[in-house]
Amino acid sequence: MLKASPRALVPFVSVDNMMRLVHHIGIETFIADLARNITEDFAKWDQFDKTPRVGSHSDVGVIELMPTSDGVFYGFKYVNGHPKNMGEGLQTVTAFGVLSDVYSGYPRLMSEMTLLTALRTAAMTAVATKHLAAPGATTMAMIGNGAQSEFQCLAVKAVCGISHVRLYDLDPAASAKCARNLDGLGLHVTQCTSPEQAVEGAQVITTATADKDMQTILTDNMVGAGVHINAIGGDCPGKTELHRDIVARANIFVEYPPQTRIEGEIQQMPADHPVTELWQVITGQTQGRKSAAEVTLFDGVGFAIEDFSALRYVHESIKDTPYYVDLDLIADPDDPRDLFGMLKRAG
Amino acid sequence: MLKASPRALVPFVSVDNMMRLVHHIGIETFIADLARNITEDFAKWDQFDKTPRVGSHSDVGVIELMPTSDGVFYGFKYVNGHPKNMGEGLQTVTAFGVLSDVYSGYPRLMSEMTLLTALRTAAMTAVATKHLAAPGATTMAMIGNGAQSEFQCLAVKAVCGISHVRLYDLDPAASAKCARNLDGLGLHVTQCTSPEQAVEGAQVITTATADKDMQTILTDNMVGAGVHINAIGGDCPGKTELHRDIVARANIFVEYPPQTRIEGEIQQMPADHPVTELWQVITGQTQGRKSAAEVTLFDGVGFAIEDFSALRYVHESIKDTPYYVDLDLIADPDDPRDLFGMLKRAG
Repeated sequence: MLKASPRALVPFVSVDNMMRLVHHIGIETFIADLARNITEDFAKWDQFDKTPRVGSHSDVGVIELMPTSDGVFYGFKYVNGHPKNMGEGLQTVTAFGVLSDVYSGYPRLMSEMTLLTALRTAAMTAVATKHLAAPGATTMAMIGNGAQSEFQCLAVKAVCGISHVRLYDLDPAASAKCARNLDGLGLHVTQCTSPEQAVEGAQVITTATADKDMQTILTDNMVGAGVHINAIGGDCPGKTELHRDIVARANIFVEYPPQTRIEGEIQQMPADHPVTELWQVITGQTQGRKSAAEVTLFDGVGFAIEDFSALRYVHESIKDTPYYVDLDLIADPDDPRDLFGMLKRAG
Repeated sequence: MLKASPRALVPFVSVDNMMRLVHHIGIETFIADLARNITEDFAKWDQFDKTPRVGSHSDVGVIELMPTSDGVFYGFKYVNGHPKNMGEGLQTVTAFGVLSDVYSGYPRLMSEMTLLTALRTAAMTAVATKHLAAPGATTMAMIGNGAQSEFQCLAVKAVCGISHVRLYDLDPAASAKCARNLDGLGLHVTQCTSPEQAVEGAQVITTATADKDMQTILTDNMVGAGVHINAIGGDCPGKTELHRDIVARANIFVEYPPQTRIEGEIQQMPADHPVTELWQVITGQTQGRKSAAEVTLFDGVGFAIEDFSALRYVHESIKDTPYYVDLDLIADPDDPRDLFGMLKRAG
């Protein structure tokens, strides 16, 4: 093998190495660090090149590319969404991503992002909860106990100081799995048999249900004064989690309105229904929660900047660790004009 | 290391392995096979999801994502363009790409595409030349002898039976490099000291110059009756290679008009200047060359379907070869809902 020049090499973080990196850093620290990076990037919102995601749709799913750039780094995520995959033993959502230098156009990191997306989605919820929930919140109801649920619970513990989580899922086996996975991680966990039971005494309600059309797992009478809701499971057109009446009376916060109006809970509302962009709360330009009695809603759908923040974090974190391998991804002939000569000499 | 399931693995073709694969198959056979795949895909043009490329521009360059799908496979290419890189010892253009199953959304191939793009660009020129040049063409003038030139010469030899190439570049050292690289590969090569000398007796003229604004390296009086021109170097707004008078009198063929009108030679012409889509010539829906005396012009800018054809070819070709490695790119927990459990058990 011809020795590849260092300029030809791009660090790659596999699923296996991502798991090692997370344990090396610690899951809660990792999520808290992601929350910090997301907060930093949301605070410089105007510097980002915000392109809507580019989707390729078929009858059974979608493949999307989500690019963004802050002028220094460029990142994109490849992500698919195929609800029918679960029944075939495959992941509904898989993802990977790349971080590049804007100045040279050269990739600087390639990473798995199935795990990383779960971690950054939880970190994003924690950022929203920290800025919007009533002070002193101790208890979260976690509605929907699938692949996202444990990450969500640990994130609000690490970032917001939540100590109690109350689990509910249509499938009790999912709640049991979630409770088992959270065992020993420092949270007081209660498995509930109805959503009504789950929301009892909770100052924060997070819904992460999936695969159902226009769900109304949470109805208006279940949401008391002062509660903060994170609705993160509705993330495509035709998929929502909350009854319209809750959305109508809540003070709504979103990532990027042009995307959320298509994919989020607010697709149930008129196109001019008032929402606040979360970055404006983070920078202090706009007030978040206006009163102790107000219901606040973070209508989270996931935005490219969060992936960018996560890739930036992994790029920083793998330095001087064994948790990556170098890929010979970039052709680097000695004379840049002599690509053919490089190929010919390899023969 | 936890053993990754086969479903988690994605074959990766590095630069080194791409060079080995090309030599294993043979450069000319590889290019001829790519030309066949491109012809097949252009023949089913209507089946493709054709999205304009998504670019992120900075003062010094651009990073683009070029996705497309035929409903069975989905492919995209990441490609940068940074003219100033050459002066810093880096490639102006680097690329990699991914081919996925539309049905599952799972990636099936990740590949370097810096070399592969040079090969597919040459194959595309050969397809156009085969369909548009006057029958019996034996001689091509190759204007611009940079990184693309040798690939271009070998492609028209392999696909169109060109036996003589006449080289010209503003920098004689580039022509010398090209001639040296083509030595022993079965072409009769003449180095020329002016573009006028290069086009003498040539039935085909290919221009692949770079980095100059609105070049007119080819002027109208240099182009005789019956000549076919491939202008492949102009590939971004503000960059052209041909004098407007040549464009005005040629019968023009393009890949995808919405892209070519922005990036190609025809950006010099009114937005409704008549052009023919090459796929219509390939399918026989439209006539190509109309007379022996006509000047035909392939205004090539490179389109996502060509990258798709190339990725499809590499995906087929690496089977049962040692020219790839498997990347652990996709998280694949035993229970798809138990992503956290997979992470926890890895601790």
